[in-house]
Parts: sequence; C-alpha cells; structure tokens
Amino acid sequence: MEERANNLIKEKDLVMLYLDDRRQFLVQVVSGLRVSTDHGDLNLSQIIGQPFGFVGKTHLGRDFYCLKPSTADLMMKVKRTTTIVYPKDLGYLLLETSVGPGSRVIELGTGSGALTLVLAKLIAPEGVVYSYDRRDDFIENAKRNLNHVGYAKNVEFTCADVALKGFNQKDVDAVFIDVPEPWDIVPKAYEALKGGHHLVSWSPNVEQVKRTIDALEAHSFKCIRAKEIIEREMLVRLQGVRPRERGITHTAYLIRAQKIIVPQ
Amino acid sequence: MEERANNLIKEKDLVMLYLDDRRQFLVQVVSGLRVSTDHGDLNLSQIIGQPFGFVGKTHLGRDFYCLKPSTADLMMKVKRTTTIVYPKDLGYLLLETSVGPGSRVIELGTGSGALTLVLAKLIAPEGVVYSYDRRDDFIENAKRNLNHVGYAKNVEFTCADVALKGFNQKDVDAVFIDVPEPWDIVPKAYEALKGGHHLVSWSPNVEQVKRTIDALEAHSFKCIRAKEIIEREMLVRLQGVRPRERGITHTAYLIRAQKIIVPQ
Amino acid sequence: MEERANNLIKEKDLVMLYLDDRRQFLVQVVSGLRVSTDHGDLNLSQIIGQPFGFVGKTHLGRDFYCLKPSTADLMMKVKRTTTIVYPKDLGYLLLETSVGPGSRVIELGTGSGALTLVLAKLIAPEGVVYSYDRRDDFIENAKRNLNHVGYAKNVEFTCADVALKGFNQKDVDAVFIDVPEPWDIVPKAYEALKGGHHLVSWSPNVEQVKRTIDALEAHSFKCIRAKEIIEREMLVRLQGVRPRERGITHTAYLIRAQKIIVPQ
Amino acid sequence: MEERANNLIKEKDLVMLYLDDRRQFLVQVVSGLRVSTDHGDLNLSQIIGQPFGFVGKTHLGRDFYCLKPSTADLMMKVKRTTTIVYPKDLGYLLLETSVGPGSRVIELGTGSGALTLVLAKLIAPEGVVYSYDRRDDFIENAKRNLNHVGYAKNVEFTCADVALKGFNQKDVDAVFIDVPEPWDIVPKAYEALKGGHHLVSWSPNVEQVKRTIDALEAHSFKCIRAKEIIEREMLVRLQGVRPRERGITHTAYLIRAQKIIVPQ
Repeated sequence: MEERANNLIKEKDLVMLYLDDRRQFLVQVVSGLRVSTDHGDLNLSQIIGQPFGFVGKTHLGRDFYCLKPSTADLMMKVKRTTTIVYPKDLGYLLLETSVGPGSRVIELGTGSGALTLVLAKLIAPEGVVYSYDRRDDFIENAKRNLNHVGYAKNVEFTCADVALKGFNQKDVDAVFIDVPEPWDIVPKAYEALKGGHHLVSWSPNVEQVKRTIDALEAHSFKCIRAKEIIEREMLVRLQGVRPRERGITHTAYLIRAQKIIVPQ
Repeated sequence: MEERANNLIKEKDLVMLYLDDRRQFLVQVVSGLRVSTDHGDLNLSQIIGQPFGFVGKTHLGRDFYCLKPSTADLMMKVKRTTTIVYPKDLGYLLLETSVGPGSRVIELGTGSGALTLVLAKLIAPEGVVYSYDRRDDFIENAKRNLNHVGYAKNVEFTCADVALKGFNQKDVDAVFIDVPEPWDIVPKAYEALKGGHHLVSWSPNVEQVKRTIDALEAHSFKCIRAKEIIEREMLVRLQGVRPRERGITHTAYLIRAQKIIVPQ
Repeated sequence: MEERANNLIKEKDLVMLYLDDRRQFLVQVVSGLRVSTDHGDLNLSQIIGQPFGFVGKTHLGRDFYCLKPSTADLMMKVKRTTTIVYPKDLGYLLLETSVGPGSRVIELGTGSGALTLVLAKLIAPEGVVYSYDRRDDFIENAKRNLNHVGYAKNVEFTCADVALKGFNQKDVDAVFIDVPEPWDIVPKAYEALKGGHHLVSWSPNVEQVKRTIDALEAHSFKCIRAKEIIEREMLVRLQGVRPRERGITHTAYLIRAQKIIVPQ
Repeated sequence: MEERANNLIKEKDLVMLYLDDRRQFLVQVVSGLRVSTDHGDLNLSQIIGQPFGFVGKTHLGRDFYCLKPSTADLMMKVKRTTTIVYPKDLGYLLLETSVGPGSRVIELGTGSGALTLVLAKLIAPEGVVYSYDRRDDFIENAKRNLNHVGYAKNVEFTCADVALKGFNQKDVDAVFIDVPEPWDIVPKAYEALKGGHHLVSWSPNVEQVKRTIDALEAHSFKCIRAKEIIEREMLVRLQGVRPRERGITHTAYLIRAQKIIVPQ
C-alpha cells in the first residue's frame, strides 16, 4: 500500500517509537540521532523518508514501530516540573466546556504545559490560549515543551500572581484552573469569563473541592458539579481477560461550573 | 459587567435552559416559543438579546439560567435512535488519537450523530468527518441533529454496508468504530487509515473486546489497549460530601490501536 | 441422592423462596401459609418435609427453589426501620476485627438489627452481643427480627443515650458504631474495649470520617484506616459478559482502629 | 485502667507489633526473642505479662504497639506458597453462605491455608473444615500456618486429586473452590453439598467466570451470581482527605451459587 507524501516522516517530526508497552519513546526526529534502549540502539536516520507506521529494527535486531503520537502521548511525555492533569481527566473536562477551534481560553497555572498544548491544539488555527503562572521557570519549561511539539504559536504566556492582580482578558470562552487554592481565583475567573460559559478546576483533596464549590456558589456560578474519573485497564492475554492488578487509583476530583450574570 | 455583542443570545442559538440538576433543556431559540416545565413556562422571547448567563423567570416566578451548552450537553441531548457513546468515554478516546482541527476522520456507525457532532466540531473549519451507517433512517436523524447544532457542513454521510464494501477514503487520520461486530471492520479500517495512526472502538461485552483485539493483532495493528472509564459523581452538600449513591456502573470497554505498515 | 434428615424443611425454618433474581422471598415456614407472586401462589405446606434445594411449582406451574438463606439474605431481608449496613461492607469489617465464636461485642445503634443478627450468629454459642440504641421502638423491631431468624438468645439489648452515659460493659472484644456522630462515642468505646482490640465505624460522608478519625487519634487509638468497598456485579449472559449498567455506587466509608493503653 | 487477666500477653500468644503503617509484624511471643526493625530492636520479654494495647519502646527509643491481630491480619501474614484470597473478597463470600459456628465446610485447594484458618475460626468449636489440595507440600505448609495461629484442631486435610476422585464428605454446608479450573470440580461439589446450600468460587479471569457459571448452570445450581469487590483506601491527613493514589486494582471475580435437587 502506498502512503501519501504527507504521512512520510521528516526532520523535526514527532514520532512515538514503540517497542512494547514498557518501551515507548517520544522523539523529535533529527538525522543521525541515536536512541538507546535495552533492546538495542535505533538510528533515526533510517526512519526519515519512511511513512508513519514503518517497522524498523534496532542494532540488536528487535522490531520497533514508528507511531503517530496521540494527543495523550504529547501530554504525558512533556518534560515535567510539576504533576500534570491526566488524559482521562482532561478528556472529560474538555467536553464539559464549549471549547473548540477558534476559542479564547485562559489557563492557570501553566505548570509543565501539558494542558497548554492540548488547548493550543484544540483552539487552532484561530483561537488563543492565555496561560498564566506565578513561576517564570515553569513558563520557560512549558515554552520549550510547546515549541518541541509545535503548538507554541497560539499561546500567550503571562507570569503573574493572579490571586492578586486578576487576568488581563475579558469574555473568554473558558477558564481552566489548576492551582492548590482555586477558591482564591474564582472571583478573578468570574471577571474574565463570558456569561453562561465554563470554569473547570481540579484538586486531589475533598476539602479543596468543598472550598472551591463554596466559592463558586458565592460568586454566581451555577450548574456546579464534581466528579471523579477512574480508568481501569483490561489485560487481554492468551490465558484470559482481566483488569490490571495494580495501578493508579486516584488523581483528582474534577469540578465544572457556569457563570451567571446576576441581575442588578 | 458588560457583555460583548458576540455573547448575546439571538434567534437559532442553542441555549441550555437550566433550572436545577433535574430540569435542563437544550433549546434552539425561536421567538415566541414557550417551554413548559413543572415549575412554570418560559417564553423564549424574553431571552433574545440578553447575554448568555442571563437569569430569567418562569411565569410561576422560578429562576432559570441561560447557559452555553457544553460539547457534552450537545452530545447527550441529540434525538436518539440508538445508544450513544458517553462523554466520559469519548473524552478519553479523542485524546488517544491525534485528531484536531483539519483532520480527516471516519466514523462507523453514524447512529444518532452524537459522536459525529463532536468530531465535526473538533476538526473544523478545514477537516472532514466521513460518517457511515447501514441504515438510512439513522443518517436522516443524525443529519437533522447536526443541522440543529450547526455542525453539518464538515460531514459527509454515506449509507453503506462497510463490512462488505469497505470505506471510500484512504489515508484518514483516525477511524472510530461503534458497531456490534468491530472485528468485521478491522481489515477495512486498515485500508482506510494512514500508517501509524489510530483506530478506536468500544463495546459493552468482554467477548467483543477479545474478538476485536484478536482481529487487530491479526491485521498489523500495534499498541493495542483496552480500558474502562468509570465516572463517579461527588455530592457536595451542606450535610457533607460523599459520592452519589446510585448511578451508571458500566457503559463500554474502550479499545485503541495503531496501524503498522508491514514490510513486504 | 438422599438428603440427611437435618436438611429437611420443617415448620418455623427460614427458607429463601427463589423464582428468579427479581423474585426472592425470605419466609418462615408455617403450614398452610400461601405466598403470592405475579407468577402464581406457593402453598408452604407442599415444602414441609422436603429437603432444602427442593423444586416446587406455583399454582401457575412456574418453578420455584427452596434455598438455604445466606447470612447476607438474613441481613437484607430484616424488617427495616433504618438504613442498614451492607454485606459487602460488613464482610470486610468483620475480618478487620478478631471477633469469632465466644466473643463479647458491643454494637451501637441497634437500628433494624441486621448487624445484630450477624454478630449473634458469629459469636454463638458462648459469646454475647450487647446492642444499644436510643430508641425503644427500634429495639422492639430488632428483637422481633432476631426472634424471626432465631438468633435472639445471645443478645442483650439496652435502650440508652450512650454519648451521655457510656456502655455498661468493660473489656469487650470489639465495638461496632453505626450512629451519625461516631466521634461522641469514641471516649465511651475506649472505656468499654479491651486493650489492643478493635473499634469499627462507618459513615456516608467524608466530613464524618475526618471527624471520627480526629477523635480516634485524640483518644489513644492507633492503626486507624478508612476504606470504601465497591461492589460490582458481572452479568454473564449468552450474548456476553459485562458489568451491570446501573447500580449502587456508594454506601459508606468504613473505619477501623485499635485501642492503645497509654503509659501513665 | 485495669485490664482483665485474659487480655495479658503470654508466651505463644500472637501479637501484631505495630510501629506504623509500613512496619507491622505478626509474631508468636517467645521469651527472649528479638525482632529487628530499621527503627530499632524489640525484645519480646518486655511485653510478656503486659496487656494487649501496651506501648513498648525499641532500643532506639521508638514506640511500638502490641495489638490484637484481626482475622484479616492472620490471613495476610501466613507464610505463602501461593496467592491467597483477599479479606475484602472473603468477607463478602462468607456472608454469601450460611456458614457459622458448627458448620461442616469443604475447601479446595488448601493453598497457604489463609482461607482454612478463617473457616476454622468461624466454625469453631463444633464444626469441621475439610481442606483438600493436590500438593502435599502445600498441605504441610498450611498445617504449620494453622498450628502457628492455633486453629488446627477443627481441620481435616486430605491430599487428593478431587477432579478425579471427588470429595469424601456428603451433606456439607458449603464448598469453597479456589483452583484454576473450577468447572472440573462443580459435579464433585454438587455431590458433597447439602441441597439448597452454597458453593463459592473465585478466579482472576473473565473466561474462568464464564466457564464456571456454564458448569454451574449445567449441574443444577441456581441463584448464580458473579461480583467484583473493589477496595479503596481513603487517606485522612492534615493537608486533606483523598483516596490513595496507587494500589491494587483487581484480585478476582467472585461467584456464588446454590444447589438444587432436581426432581426425578
């Protein structure tokens, strides 16, 4: 089967090199670069000009597969300075907003940029992501991560203490809050958000959920809901099908709410 | 606070009329249309020209809120001829692909069009959704649903028996399969898909998962995984925080895989 | 196959009459008693002298099965004046104590007597259950329930306000607490309990868990743990195996702790 | 507070020495025995004659607590030759039978004896556990484990291939099956069981559940159900309450059924 030119791997492309479930490497293709694994080395020169889906061999003769990175792969493989939101949680949260191509959205905090890149991809080519963080070093790392995956151009970063100064935008389509004390941000998010539109936030502890929801109720948000998303992998093997025996059992509670315009 | 003109409610807009968690109505605004509830009637004329987030009153004096529909709201409120994929499941699946603005994706079957509209929104303004179903009446209903929410223009519907005839496209960015026997479609999906790219499928029963994965392994797919996404609502009330006592406990097992190009 | 005399159904025996998963009736056998179902009537005279496991017929010709009630059946079929602890939760909690034949245990509150009967069965023939409740009518109902299932003789009921007056026993092997404010009872439970032995408690809300655990830590309990037990039914049908789609998603958080004797 | 003589720790008692959640040691008390931990050594002589609940000190000055072992502690701390049934699963299963003091029950296989000891405790002082295994070395290890915890006297072990030869008992109150191929045992369990009484079995894979249930249906069992019990620990900390982040996500599917006596 012939592959279209636009599916051929070239310099600077992101490729997920997959040997098996424990050996997956997200790389940006550079001619001559070698990737070392315990099943042998891969020379990236051999995959340039090949289509995605190509089967290569390490110098020890082991097959590897050149896969297209999923959005989740891009998120999970950013260089991390902080914990990141998980795809299972973000997938749910994105659909709980109206965000799509062309949207203008605010994110606080930038963290490692995992969420930033997903938002940037989702709102392209016309939308904008306004990403805020208090820490300059986090923003610098996130910028590098976004440049790496090619989604930097629709993002504006701001280093600021939002709890004090608020956001610089008005009438954004959604606000995503990932900070330890979301309740401090709720009044600022209200000011920045379009009427009727969505605020989402997530926190690991029940007390944070309670306090955030109290703040949302006090600041004219409605349709407030908190959920948990639990992911359970099924192992499909020759000897039988069963859920994986050990794994992640909690990440965060997810909150969504919508801004009401209070009659004067 | 002033609201931008582009956030004012006008004829034909979709609005989520929210009274409380049990009373939410997705409506397309038509001047003069009345919506009846057990807490009184709403006349839609009163909300035209108001911003999203507006607080109206039923003729019995009860507050209602004019909310922006989320993507999940649009999905869940389509007129259903079939069971639909749940937002918790679709959110996860979308991030397991590389689909975004500009993508060309195949969907089988069209069903009620809930997935179709989310894909259409996600790939806009340049992409295309190729939506297949064996049943003409399903496609007609889905077309009405998509026209209703305004996402029909990037969708091409085809009524065909794909297990027999295959798909008409090549080199699509992703294939979404929602049929009772996904294993019959796997070889056809392989032909339609770009190398390295993603097939996703979902099924309620374990045997379907097993048989689909066997077909994927037999047809040169790799990085095959099956998961379940379990959603758990937390009730945050004055008397305390706890998970909801009763609810949905299973929808479907979710499968993702990527196409390999087998060396000749 | 012959059945031993001791497995023959006789007057006053408890029998679970099972037609299908939606039609199960726990009855005490009385000659001449008729049980009415939407699949016909059963006359209990026909099962006297038959072995457990007997297959009878309703007057409409439908099969029913005379099953031995499980401990969980006895719990779930008591006449309820209150919510009861679920078997999934109690099974876990019982094994988290050292209770067995001969144990002396305290229970507060009596409620409908569902827990009382399981404890009474477990500690027989030598042990004692001391069951407390503030409400006389609950105790009366529980006594009837225990007489019904034949486990009344090892139970001593006390109607008292334990938060004020404490328990009358010392050196019991375990204390089971099922009241809305367990933290009030913790000091009284400490006085009644043997050193090193177990207190268990359960509550639906997170705040109750927090406050109970704070009280346990303040009153020299150690090895304190809180868990949730989630039960998930698998449907095994001709068309396939899958989890049940709807059901119970939360009952209570379960707490266990052990008493330390603080050096003077 | 004074402790009754019967709660004083003496030679041969089982004590759970608890330093913290990661350092718990189930020991049989022997005068002069030293237990080494990374927080210092404990000399067991110092706890003889002290009550359960006693707070001792390691030679490095760290507190340890002398706790009464729970039934779950005894199960989890047996010397293991095989995987064992978990307390969360066994607690549920026990209540799904009618087993209590005086019952006669069959267990296959013996494995490490974790289930054996719980059954032996539950049916004491008059009942009997008939424990079968194909492997002599497993039975020898289980005997040592039961002697260690003091529950050997109500257990009869048999080394046999039950799938071929069946059980030696008739009219037992329950049969517990923990083997890889339970379907082979179903006809033998039918012969050994009282009419109307309970068979329980557990298996990690879905295919095993399906095949076991098919065998139960073919051999006159009714009221057949399969469940999963999921345990979720809540961490209650100063910084907040939340579920534990990583842990066990699957152990086994649990099956229960009751024997019907088919009319001739």
